[in-house]
Amino acid sequence: MSSTRPPPQLPRVTIERISPELDGGRYPVKRVVGDTVRVSVDIFKDGHDLIGAQILFRGPGEQLWREEPLLHSFDEDRWHGRFVPDRIGLWEYTIEAWPDLFRTWREDLKKRVDAQQDVGSEMLEGAQLVQRRLAWIGAEASTEMRHAAKALADEAATIDARLSVAFSKKLEEAMAGPLDPEHVTRHEARHLVVDRERAVFGSWYEVFPRSLANEPGKHGTFADLERRLPDLAALGFDVLYLPPVHPIGVTKRKGRNNAVTCEPGDVGSPWAIGGAEGGHDAVHPELGSIDDFVHMVHAANALGIEIALDFALQCSPDHPWISDHPEWFFVRPDGTLRYAENPPKKYEDIYPLNFWCADRHALWLACRDLLLFWVDKGVRIFRVDNPHTKPLAFWEWVIREVQRRHPDVIFLAEAFTRPKRMRSLAKLGFTQSYTYFTWKNSPWELKEYASELASSEMAEYYRPNFFANTPDILHEYLQDGGRPAFRIRLLLAATLSPTYGIYSGYELCENVPVRRGSEEYLDSEKYQLKARDFHAPGNIRHDILRLNRVRREHAALQKLSNLRFLQTEYEPVLAYWKSAPGDDVIVIVNTDPHHCHETHVMVPVEELGLGEHQAYTVHDLLTDERYVWHGSRNYVKLDPADKVGHVLRVVRSEAEA
Amino acid sequence: MSSTRPPPQLPRVTIERISPELDGGRYPVKRVVGDTVRVSVDIFKDGHDLIGAQILFRGPGEQLWREEPLLHSFDEDRWHGRFVPDRIGLWEYTIEAWPDLFRTWREDLKKRVDAQQDVGSEMLEGAQLVQRRLAWIGAEASTEMRHAAKALADEAATIDARLSVAFSKKLEEAMAGPLDPEHVTRHEARHLVVDRERAVFGSWYEVFPRSLANEPGKHGTFADLERRLPDLAALGFDVLYLPPVHPIGVTKRKGRNNAVTCEPGDVGSPWAIGGAEGGHDAVHPELGSIDDFVHMVHAANALGIEIALDFALQCSPDHPWISDHPEWFFVRPDGTLRYAENPPKKYEDIYPLNFWCADRHALWLACRDLLLFWVDKGVRIFRVDNPHTKPLAFWEWVIREVQRRHPDVIFLAEAFTRPKRMRSLAKLGFTQSYTYFTWKNSPWELKEYASELASSEMAEYYRPNFFANTPDILHEYLQDGGRPAFRIRLLLAATLSPTYGIYSGYELCENVPVRRGSEEYLDSEKYQLKARDFHAPGNIRHDILRLNRVRREHAALQKLSNLRFLQTEYEPVLAYWKSAPGDDVIVIVNTDPHHCHETHVMVPVEELGLGEHQAYTVHDLLTDERYVWHGSRNYVKLDPADKVGHVLRVVRSEAEA
Repeated sequence: MSSTRPPPQLPRVTIERISPELDGGRYPVKRVVGDTVRVSVDIFKDGHDLIGAQILFRGPGEQLWREEPLLHSFDEDRWHGRFVPDRIGLWEYTIEAWPDLFRTWREDLKKRVDAQQDVGSEMLEGAQLVQRRLAWIGAEASTEMRHAAKALADEAATIDARLSVAFSKKLEEAMAGPLDPEHVTRHEARHLVVDRERAVFGSWYEVFPRSLANEPGKHGTFADLERRLPDLAALGFDVLYLPPVHPIGVTKRKGRNNAVTCEPGDVGSPWAIGGAEGGHDAVHPELGSIDDFVHMVHAANALGIEIALDFALQCSPDHPWISDHPEWFFVRPDGTLRYAENPPKKYEDIYPLNFWCADRHALWLACRDLLLFWVDKGVRIFRVDNPHTKPLAFWEWVIREVQRRHPDVIFLAEAFTRPKRMRSLAKLGFTQSYTYFTWKNSPWELKEYASELASSEMAEYYRPNFFANTPDILHEYLQDGGRPAFRIRLLLAATLSPTYGIYSGYELCENVPVRRGSEEYLDSEKYQLKARDFHAPGNIRHDILRLNRVRREHAALQKLSNLRFLQTEYEPVLAYWKSAPGDDVIVIVNTDPHHCHETHVMVPVEELGLGEHQAYTVHDLLTDERYVWHGSRNYVKLDPADKVGHVLRVVRSEAEA
Repeated sequence: MSSTRPPPQLPRVTIERISPELDGGRYPVKRVVGDTVRVSVDIFKDGHDLIGAQILFRGPGEQLWREEPLLHSFDEDRWHGRFVPDRIGLWEYTIEAWPDLFRTWREDLKKRVDAQQDVGSEMLEGAQLVQRRLAWIGAEASTEMRHAAKALADEAATIDARLSVAFSKKLEEAMAGPLDPEHVTRHEARHLVVDRERAVFGSWYEVFPRSLANEPGKHGTFADLERRLPDLAALGFDVLYLPPVHPIGVTKRKGRNNAVTCEPGDVGSPWAIGGAEGGHDAVHPELGSIDDFVHMVHAANALGIEIALDFALQCSPDHPWISDHPEWFFVRPDGTLRYAENPPKKYEDIYPLNFWCADRHALWLACRDLLLFWVDKGVRIFRVDNPHTKPLAFWEWVIREVQRRHPDVIFLAEAFTRPKRMRSLAKLGFTQSYTYFTWKNSPWELKEYASELASSEMAEYYRPNFFANTPDILHEYLQDGGRPAFRIRLLLAATLSPTYGIYSGYELCENVPVRRGSEEYLDSEKYQLKARDFHAPGNIRHDILRLNRVRREHAALQKLSNLRFLQTEYEPVLAYWKSAPGDDVIVIVNTDPHHCHETHVMVPVEELGLGEHQAYTVHDLLTDERYVWHGSRNYVKLDPADKVGHVLRVVRSEAEA
C-alpha cells in the first residue's frame, strides 16, 4: 500500500464565489477612482469554530496589502465588505480567512462560566492561544498580550481576575486575527482595472477636421479645428473624436459616395491610411504638421476637451509598410499582397495586416509603438476601428502594454458584431464600447437593452458609449422622423448612458441617406469635404448645450447602474429614474417623433421618501419649468413639435427648490 | 522604450463558458457510466474565418484523447456536442478549436466562382492550405490530399478540373481539422467523476445487527443478519447500511435513552467506537468475527445486496489510539485529552480527533487505511458520520485516495448542516448525500426542495438519498400521522428520489418519541437492543415490496433530473411526472395523512404525445388497477385510510397495456 502523504498546505477554510468576479477570475472587473467596490463571498469551514476574514487589496506596484473587514450575514450565510481604490491602474484584491480560535474560546468560556463549570483548564488554554499569536507576531505584539498571557495562566490569581482579562476589550482587539500563518487561507487574487472618470462619463463629438475650413471647397486644417474648439466647449463636449488624421492613399482611392474610381480633387477616405508622406505615425499634410496637431491638442485640453484619435490597423496600397514590411501582410501565391475582401466584394484601397505572420512579434510591437507615439503627442483616448477583425489576443496584449505605462489611456471599441464578441472585447481590456443603441428605437427595445447594460453582469465590465449617429449609421428613425427624432434620440442617448456622442451634422438634423433603405449618408463626409453652417435654422444646439450642462451638474446622470425604468400607462412614452446621493432625476421621453402623447407616469414615491398623497415639485432641468406633482401617479403630455421629453429633478423641500 | 515581446503561445480562438462546469473547474461534475454528457460552450474568434471545434475526453489512465464533434447553433451563438463515458473513474474532458481555413477558403471560392471572378490565384492558395496540413500530419495523410495538393496547383489543367478537386467531398473530409498545431486552442481540462449506477439509484435499509437475535434479550450477530438477508432481498432492497460494527467503549458508556450513566448489561452506543478488543479495524466480539463479517458480506452480495458501513471518525475513551497516539487528539494544558463538547454540554464517551495536529500526516494516512482495510473486506459503500465536523480538505484528499485505487467505492455524506457546507461536501467528493427531506412535509416545501435538487446546478453534483427516517430523526409528521403518514412518506421518498432509504422499524410504523417535541425515538436502538416482529399487524411491507419492484422496473424512477411537478387543483394533493424513453410515470400523493381529498390533476398531454380530448389508460403500478383518462384534466380521489397515492404508468396504445 503506497503511503501518499497529504499535500503540505491545505486550506483550513473554504473561500468561494467571490463577487465581483468575471469568468472565474479570467478577466478583471472595472471601476473608476473613488468607486466603492462591494465584495461578497462564501466562507465556511468544518466544525463549530468561528471564522475571521478580511478583504486584502493593493494598487498597482504596491507590495503591501491593505485590509478591510468582512462581516457575516447569517441569513444569507455570506460575507460582505467593501473597499475604495484611490488611484488608476490595475489593482488586485482577494479574501483571507482563518479559524478564529480566540473568539471561539471566549464564546465557549462564557457558556461554561454561565453554567458554573470549573474553567481552570480553559484559562490555561486561553493563555496558550495568546502565547501562540505572540510567538508569531513577536516584536509587534502589544503589552496587553504579554500581560494577558501571564495573567490568564496565573493560578495564584482569583478566577474573577483572570476572567476579567479573558473578556477585556483590549485583549479582544489584540487577538483579532489568525493565531499563526498556518491557519490562514488566502484565495487566488482577482484583478480590478481602475480608470479615471472619463472612462464612464463624457459627452463625445465626432468631427472631420478637413471639413472645417472657413471657405467652401477648401481643405480644413488642425488650425481650423482649433478655431472651432471654443464653440464645442461651450456646447459642453468633453471628448472630440477625430477620424484618422494620417496621409491618405492615392492608389485605388475611392471617389465621392464610395465610387470605385475617384475624380481629380477627390479627397479619399481617411481610413485608407498611408501614403508617400508616411503611415500611422504621420499626419495628412493638408491638415497640417505634427506640431500643429500637438498645438491643437493642447488648445483643446486647455478648454477641458480631450482629443480621441482613431486607431485603424489597415493600410492603403501606398502605406510605407507595404514596401518596408510586405511580410506583415497576406502574401498571395503569386507574390502580390492580398487586399481586403468579403467575397465576392473587393476593397482594393485597403490591405489588412496578417497578425499571425511569421514576423508577428515585430508587427505587434510596431502597432503598440504607434499607440505610444500618439500618447507621446498628448493623446489619451483611442477609438479603435473594427477591433473584432484583429485577434482578440492582440488587443489583450497591446492594451495591457500601453496601460501599464500610461494607465490613463482609454480605449473605445468600435465593434458592431455578435454580442459575445462585443462583450469579449470589453472584458479583455477595452475601456468602453460602442453599442446597438442606434438600432434600439422602440420603447421595449430601449428598456430591454438599457436594462441589460445597467443591471446584468455586463455592468461589471461593459461601459456603453451611446452614439446617436456615426458616419456609417444614419438610422431610418432619423431619416423619417426629422427634427423631433433627432431631439428624442439625443435626449435618450444623453440620459440613458453616462457616455454618449454625436457625429457632426447631427445638430443640424442632417438626415438624407445615399438611397432609400441604406444607413449611409448622401455625399458622405467619409469621401468628400462637407462645409456646414452650424447655426443654420432648425439646429438643436440649445438641446445639446442644455443636456450637456445638466449632465455635468447631476451626479445621477453620470452613472449607469442606477438606471430604473418606471411604469407609464401608454407605451410610446418611456420613463426612467436615476438616483445619486441627494440627486434624483426622472426622465420622460415621447419616443414617437410624429404624434403628441399623454399618459400617467408611476413615480416610486416610497423609495423617494415621499408620501403616497404628498405634493412635491419636479423641476424640468431643460426648461426650468416647475410642476407640482402629487403621490405616485402623475400626468404628462408631450408634443414632439414642442417638447420631446422632460428631465425632472425631484425637489423634496422648499430649500431644494 | 522596452520591447516586451508578445507571449509565444496566444490563443487563436476564444473558448469560454463550458458547460457542464462547477465553480470554474474547481470541482468535477458527476455522471454514471453510460450517461450522455451534453457539452455546450462559447467559441468565437476575430474576423470572418469559419471555426472548427471538437470535444476531447478520456477515461482514467488514458493517454490518448477521444473525440466527438461540436456543432454551432447560430441563434444561440453556442456550440453543442455530447460524449458517453463508458467506465467508472475520474475522466477529463475539454474543448479544442481552430480557425477552419480550408472550409473558409472553399466558401469564399464558391462565392468567387458564382461571381465569375478569376480564381487562378485562389487555386494556388488552396494547394498551399493542403500542403500545410500535409506537412503537419505527414505519414498519416491520405492519398487524396497528396493528389489534391498537386491537382489544385496544376496550372496546365482546366479550371473546371481543379474546381472539382476543390469541392470534392473526400478532400473536405481529409481537410477537416486544423492546418497545423499552432492553430489549435485547447481549453484547460475539466474533470468528471463517473460512478456506477448504485451512486444514483438504490433502495437502502438501515439495520442494527445486534437487534436481530432470534431470542429476545440476546445480542444479535452477523449470522443473525445473514438469516435476515433473504427477506430484505425479497422486499427489494439494494443496500443494507449498518451502524458501526466495532468494539464499543466501556468508560463513560451511555445508558438506555441516552442516560449519562449506564446500567449493567447496557450495550452502549455503537458510535462510541473502540475498546480493549480494538478500534475501527476490529468488530465488536458479540457480533462475531471479521470472518463472520466477510461471510455475511458475501451472502448479501450473492442476493444482490451491498453492505454499507458507517465511517465515524471519533474514539471512545477505550479506543487503542487514545493510548497509542494521544498526539492525534486535543491535548489540554494539564496533559489530559479533550472529550467532545458543545459548551456547556459534555460528551465524555467520545473523543474527537485533532485533524490539524502536528502528526497529522500519520493520522490522515491511518484514517485512509481504515477505509482501505474495509474495502479489502468487501465493503464498497461508506456512510460517513458527521463529515462536516472534520476538515473539508481531509475529505477531498481521502476520497480521492480511496477512489483512485477503487473507483467503485461510494461515499454517502451524513451531514445535516447549513446548505453551503452540505453542497461543498458533495462537490469535493462525496458520491451522495443525506438531505433535508425528513423536514419537508408540506406540498410546497416538497416541491421547492425537490425542484432545487432536480433542476438547479446541484443536479450536477448533489445526489440525494431520501431517508424517510433515521435513528436520530422521527419527524413529528410520522409521530402524529400514524400508518398513513408512514405510507405517504415512503411513497414520496421512493418516487421523488432515485435513492431513498428507511431505518428498521419504519415498516412497522414505529412512531413513539422519547418525549413530546423530540425527534428521538423512545427506547432508541442507539443505546439498547430492540427485538421486532417484522410481520406484526399494521406493517407496510407490501408497500415497500411493491414500490421497490416498480422502481427496478421503471427507468423513469431511476433518475432525478427528469422530475417535473404537475398542477393540481387542491394543494394537499401533490402530483409529479417522471419520464424516461418509453416510460412515463405520473405519481399522485395525498400529503395529508388525516383526510380524504379529491382534486383534478393537469396532465401534460402535449408533451406526452396525447391529444387534448384523447382517451388513454393509466395503469396503477402499485395496485394493478387501470383507469381511462381523457385529455389534460383528470379526477383523483385519495383516502389515506385506503390509498395514499397512485403511481401511474401512462399507456398510449393497446399494445402497451
